[in-house]
Amino acid sequence: MSKPSIPKGTRDFGPRAMARRQWVCSTIRGVFERHGFLPVETPSFENLKTLTGKYGEEGDKLIFRILNNGDYLSKANPEALISKDSKLLTPTISKKALRYDLTVPFARFVVMHRNELTLPFRRYQIQPVWRGDRPGKGRYQEFTQCDADIIGSTSSLCELDLVQVFSEALDSLGVPGYTILINDRRILAAVALSMGVGADRLTDWTVAVDKYDKVGVDGVVKELEVRGFEVDVAKGIQKLFEINSASNSLDVLSNIGSVIANNSEGMQGVSDMRALLSRASADGIEAPKIKFDAMLARGLDYYTGAIFEVRVADSPVGSICGGGRYDDLTGIFGWSGMSGVGISFGVDRIEDVLTHFNKFPETLDLTTDVLVTYMNEKNCDVELQLVSQLRSLGLAVEMYPDPVKLKKQMKYAGDREIPFVVLIGDEERTAGKVTLKNMSDGSQQLLLMNDVFGSINLQ
Amino acid sequence: MSKPSIPKGTRDFGPRAMARRQWVCSTIRGVFERHGFLPVETPSFENLKTLTGKYGEEGDKLIFRILNNGDYLSKANPEALISKDSKLLTPTISKKALRYDLTVPFARFVVMHRNELTLPFRRYQIQPVWRGDRPGKGRYQEFTQCDADIIGSTSSLCELDLVQVFSEALDSLGVPGYTILINDRRILAAVALSMGVGADRLTDWTVAVDKYDKVGVDGVVKELEVRGFEVDVAKGIQKLFEINSASNSLDVLSNIGSVIANNSEGMQGVSDMRALLSRASADGIEAPKIKFDAMLARGLDYYTGAIFEVRVADSPVGSICGGGRYDDLTGIFGWSGMSGVGISFGVDRIEDVLTHFNKFPETLDLTTDVLVTYMNEKNCDVELQLVSQLRSLGLAVEMYPDPVKLKKQMKYAGDREIPFVVLIGDEERTAGKVTLKNMSDGSQQLLLMNDVFGSINLQ
Repeated sequence: MSKPSIPKGTRDFGPRAMARRQWVCSTIRGVFERHGFLPVETPSFENLKTLTGKYGEEGDKLIFRILNNGDYLSKANPEALISKDSKLLTPTISKKALRYDLTVPFARFVVMHRNELTLPFRRYQIQPVWRGDRPGKGRYQEFTQCDADIIGSTSSLCELDLVQVFSEALDSLGVPGYTILINDRRILAAVALSMGVGADRLTDWTVAVDKYDKVGVDGVVKELEVRGFEVDVAKGIQKLFEINSASNSLDVLSNIGSVIANNSEGMQGVSDMRALLSRASADGIEAPKIKFDAMLARGLDYYTGAIFEVRVADSPVGSICGGGRYDDLTGIFGWSGMSGVGISFGVDRIEDVLTHFNKFPETLDLTTDVLVTYMNEKNCDVELQLVSQLRSLGLAVEMYPDPVKLKKQMKYAGDREIPFVVLIGDEERTAGKVTLKNMSDGSQQLLLMNDVFGSINLQ
Repeated sequence: MSKPSIPKGTRDFGPRAMARRQWVCSTIRGVFERHGFLPVETPSFENLKTLTGKYGEEGDKLIFRILNNGDYLSKANPEALISKDSKLLTPTISKKALRYDLTVPFARFVVMHRNELTLPFRRYQIQPVWRGDRPGKGRYQEFTQCDADIIGSTSSLCELDLVQVFSEALDSLGVPGYTILINDRRILAAVALSMGVGADRLTDWTVAVDKYDKVGVDGVVKELEVRGFEVDVAKGIQKLFEINSASNSLDVLSNIGSVIANNSEGMQGVSDMRALLSRASADGIEAPKIKFDAMLARGLDYYTGAIFEVRVADSPVGSICGGGRYDDLTGIFGWSGMSGVGISFGVDRIEDVLTHFNKFPETLDLTTDVLVTYMNEKNCDVELQLVSQLRSLGLAVEMYPDPVKLKKQMKYAGDREIPFVVLIGDEERTAGKVTLKNMSDGSQQLLLMNDVFGSINLQ
């Protein structure tokens, strides 16, 4: 039997990693709940047609398809088998696929359950997603997202709510040096138009601008050339980059405003961004925690208003959160005009960032409070009774399962960092007492059984 | 666009179902943690070879395979394509599969991480698993298991520990009329031998006996005939059934003991079962909560000692928990002789049972504590300030995002069952006060902003 392994881009999480991940998720969940979001979960796999065509061509390629069970080839496209055409064959041998994000399944959920929902509907969802991406720093094939969305309202107070969620959660987690970048797709569209980019080329232009984070302004200019945009567009991007370099978000917005002054949609975006910054500031969320970034574009096609991204200075990974407003996400499933706005926390990248900066609380590792040793092979009734009693008082208690040498049992307690050990040797047994050993300072007390609980002082 | 749907055997969970499921999982997790179990998670998909050949022929067919990404046909077996042989083709177009249970991935985990583990190692794992089973009552294609295993000890105290976990968790959940059925594979083997069934046919015999729960004793006899066992074996089963009908577990064990008296392995099983019943009884776990069941067999092949199953009287689903001891689970991954014992709670079936008997606590549904209304379109600074203040005090607070008619906002609060609503009309605003409305009794108070928190009395 060859050595066992796990698929690339996936990970096992042992107790220490689990303690950290549970803490990250429960901290974020706590903030979601304080903001009135309600939990929802959707199946890990969806019908293939629910997912395909929603993430762009590149995204589609990364979706994991599930092979139909049984004799799947009996219904396979015979032509595709002969021509070895994977793309043609797939829909005939695979009907299901693993979810790629939580947003599209949520849109599907909303349409299927629309009669049960009270609008505006605030939902949160914490589940893994899967992408067949090339594994790398901060990039996994299985990772966990924590999403919060508000649907059924176009009010910009929803954007404020989500900016507050970002800030409260990231502050609670102690993420150092984060910035919530905000922009608005309406501003981006107006800026593009001012450079001579028509609506038909807007997506193409946005995809190029979206690379700014990774390739810089020169990279974006090259990307635009490759995509066949004219020189004016490249010049426009240079100008946008200069405007964006102002240190103050309000100055950037003013300058953008003068570029797109005659575009009412764009100016509505500018006005909403101003209001968002001002209200966030009233709540104590100010630079450098929040910043208007005219070069922020976000890859996904369905955003139509505000867009968000959270980045951490000097961090080993890219953005740790994202989000934005979509005017018609449910339209693809037959229910048009349902506007919403949502955000997503990347648990795995937050874990990477906190590990990198050594910012996890030290007290997180779970352990047992008390180990009761097993010393008398013949009879352990007293030990078992004590174990049950301590557990019923809420302590985490283990009994060592084998009557092996005490040294071995004490080593186990030490390795596991268990703070208290109970010993019942022959002497203690005869006296009807137990010895309680404090493992951190090595002190021991001889106690009556009933006094053990009161003597265990956990930090 | 056709109506969206989800794959058969899968479900969406809305807020009400989520509240129930979160409560079930956190209750079980609490018991696991009080017993010193540490959390572990493994990837949703494993390399195919990790999973295949572990669950028997029937089980293998139910494993969901993931199609390789990209142009997977380029590496497909050409012979299999021509002959349309699904079985032959699969390993050449699919390298990964969704986990079928948590036990085999855990065995793989233990072998891969053996140098990091302190033995005995107590782990818990709460994750979904997937099986391509025909959906039915209590049978889903995606369902959640809560597993606890102790490895690295052969002590029967481990079995006691897990029986206590069953009992504490099921009592905390308020599962009505449950019985923890226990048996031992060593007893089963000795009984089979006493009927003339050799070691080579033991699995076959066990699979037949395992159907007793569903088909009764006559069904088992028929099943044995179909499988080619001799008449003596059928007679033996009839006798075993009679012995098993005694109302007292200890009587059943005595009578079994006289049948297999000359089989030392079997008698060790009898003695361990006696000790387990006696120690459980000392801890208050007695009939009908626990019962020795000589007809309990469990389908899985890897059990070698104690086996467990929990059933609920008059319930709509089969067993809700299972488990057992395995002497060499990690041997399949190249590390022999690591004995362990584990149990598994089926979250979905527990949910079904509690729903069926209407036993979920009524207070579970999550909701927002306070809704702050949005009445003055021009200015909502005071409202926003109040919202942040109440949240910072730990309350779950929402502000209605749109300045629509008050009636609509109140209807939202009613539909969502939000217990308190804050109103700030022109009058209140002028007076620097707010109105707090208690939605359960309709009473209202005019309060200073700072007095709101103290006046919110949540049950």
